[in-house]
Amino acid sequence: MIRACLTALALVLPLAAPAGEPRGTGDLGVVIERASGSVLVVDQSDHAALCRVEGLGDLSHASLTFSPDERFAYVFGRDGGLSKVDILACRLDRRVVQAGNAIGGAISDDGRLVAVSNYEPGGVKVFDAETLDPVADVPMGSKTVGLADAPGSRFAVATWDTGEVWVLDHSADPANPRVTRIEGVGANPYDALMTADGRTFIVGLFGEKGLTTIDLWQDPPQPRRILPDYGRNQPDLPVYKMPHLQGWTLAGATYALPAVGLHQVLWADAASGRETGRTPVAGQPVFVTARPDGRELWVNFATPDNGTVEVIDSVTRQVKRTLHPGAGILHMEFTPRGREVWLSARDDDKVVIYDTRTYQKLGEIGAQAPSGIFFTARAHRTGL
Amino acid sequence: MIRACLTALALVLPLAAPAGEPRGTGDLGVVIERASGSVLVVDQSDHAALCRVEGLGDLSHASLTFSPDERFAYVFGRDGGLSKVDILACRLDRRVVQAGNAIGGAISDDGRLVAVSNYEPGGVKVFDAETLDPVADVPMGSKTVGLADAPGSRFAVATWDTGEVWVLDHSADPANPRVTRIEGVGANPYDALMTADGRTFIVGLFGEKGLTTIDLWQDPPQPRRILPDYGRNQPDLPVYKMPHLQGWTLAGATYALPAVGLHQVLWADAASGRETGRTPVAGQPVFVTARPDGRELWVNFATPDNGTVEVIDSVTRQVKRTLHPGAGILHMEFTPRGREVWLSARDDDKVVIYDTRTYQKLGEIGAQAPSGIFFTARAHRTGL
Repeated sequence: MIRACLTALALVLPLAAPAGEPRGTGDLGVVIERASGSVLVVDQSDHAALCRVEGLGDLSHASLTFSPDERFAYVFGRDGGLSKVDILACRLDRRVVQAGNAIGGAISDDGRLVAVSNYEPGGVKVFDAETLDPVADVPMGSKTVGLADAPGSRFAVATWDTGEVWVLDHSADPANPRVTRIEGVGANPYDALMTADGRTFIVGLFGEKGLTTIDLWQDPPQPRRILPDYGRNQPDLPVYKMPHLQGWTLAGATYALPAVGLHQVLWADAASGRETGRTPVAGQPVFVTARPDGRELWVNFATPDNGTVEVIDSVTRQVKRTLHPGAGILHMEFTPRGREVWLSARDDDKVVIYDTRTYQKLGEIGAQAPSGIFFTARAHRTGL
Repeated sequence: MIRACLTALALVLPLAAPAGEPRGTGDLGVVIERASGSVLVVDQSDHAALCRVEGLGDLSHASLTFSPDERFAYVFGRDGGLSKVDILACRLDRRVVQAGNAIGGAISDDGRLVAVSNYEPGGVKVFDAETLDPVADVPMGSKTVGLADAPGSRFAVATWDTGEVWVLDHSADPANPRVTRIEGVGANPYDALMTADGRTFIVGLFGEKGLTTIDLWQDPPQPRRILPDYGRNQPDLPVYKMPHLQGWTLAGATYALPAVGLHQVLWADAASGRETGRTPVAGQPVFVTARPDGRELWVNFATPDNGTVEVIDSVTRQVKRTLHPGAGILHMEFTPRGREVWLSARDDDKVVIYDTRTYQKLGEIGAQAPSGIFFTARAHRTGL
């Protein structure tokens, strides 16, 4: 932690200076420091931390999204805080506590609206991306999960208590979204995932087996059940962590996804939703993340195996490499064209950088109990 | 043109000032002004030109690529000039004339090397992205075309005179790339295309029908012929413009591509390379560009139909909309998440901006005979 602070102090000045040299934002990133309510701004090109921004509240379960210009990060905290961080000036631009308990958010494809998914009081609240002033409040009579943006100023979200998916269309009137309500999605959605083209919303179910997909190109969209056997299926084996659906990956026409509570990665045909194989791995997988070229999948694990990372060849579906990058590997983020992968080692208080071709360590950066790593290239992608 | 100059003059100061307010680069872009050897730096969020950079030589057939931080544009001119433009400071950072006649270039996935494909003297030259100092010179005894980056500090290029594809791997020693040479690709490759995952290199042939694909995941890569009937097939109908393969698009598992010399868009199955249908259109298509969500394809045309743009529904494969955005529509660029499309109207000296959902014009920007429009999000993609 001392190292992290020194790094931050040493590097805070160049960016914070008002007359600072102009610099691009395409190679920047933000690392969540889950225990200290702070984020670290990092530079991919220099393998360095640039500065730390503090005062973001409870980040024990946090995510973020970027403005289209890649200058601002919108950080969604567990405590209902929505913080707008200026990563160039390295300061907290503004912050609102918009709910009692929030679970994530998204930004509209025009960059004008930021939506937050809430546990308490439930529903979705939408804010002006510039000012964070409230724009719309959509109660849904339920906790909401898996909020994602869809093309055309739309957001999709699943409702935990009522098993529905709501699609909010803000294109005509931002303050009064047109609501498309899809019922019968399944019992207790716990998370959801939007495909990169913004077409298919995939909902994970806690209350029953299988998942439900919604094709947003259909009018009205119809729920379709896939992978009927997917889910927790060995009660005697404790599930240390319910995998995020963001831990899923689509390589070519095939999904690779973590088996819940099993030491396996599952393969499924994206078109039919049918399972096509399983790969045994070192522990309970959390994230199964494709290198951007899709040739490799990098897998991290729940405790007690969270010091191990395995690399799977997407053609042979075999583990080709096992790495031990550090203690408590919580997240992996690839540089946009896949040349490097950055891993957060929470229990070593550092971010570790690997070359994805040689598997050699390229560097590390001090960070306080890092969890999520987010590179600015996400600003240009749908569903993140 | 007067309007363009005034726009540029009015807006040049804020960015050029050394103590300028920091700004993100994720929503910037560069427009080629083909007749005046200049480029216009544009702001997607404000629908505005920020400034003009001049002195780039012959841009009558030019393309560019971006540094990973989205600050620098590397402009490849027809006269062999390689210009590095600082789009934040709005100035020509440096420029070398590296050949007599060049046709395009690419940047390596680590952002360290810029490669240029040359007609005269032929072959490929590779430069340090920071300094533009020469790093490697690879004569190939031929004009080269279709240069593209591939993962792992590699470049792929096709040879016009000898019908080969060369893959240069600079990962071990930048100055001495390991060369993989694939022969028998076909007669007179005139252009090539790298798929977004960096796996498949598609080569267009001028000397014979059909195209050749190279699967870079194979070792050694083998050429495979696809679309055996693709190419100029009605000698009595003049081909006003040989379509760039960059005019191809991959929507889902289907290629949509311009028919050479015909008023048709062709559909082909990406896996088999077999033709699966044709859509009649208003003229000889040049670019068939998918909106980022893949639901629509926007098509522009060769003269005399280059004032028309048609929108094709990728599900029904029917033309759903016909637009007349201006005179001499040379290029179309979508904002990264597809909310807007920017079109260059060369003969109206302006760039026109459309909403891709309402098809309404959102604005226009004065530009001198604009051709290519390039948004900085390209920095994060493979094969561009």
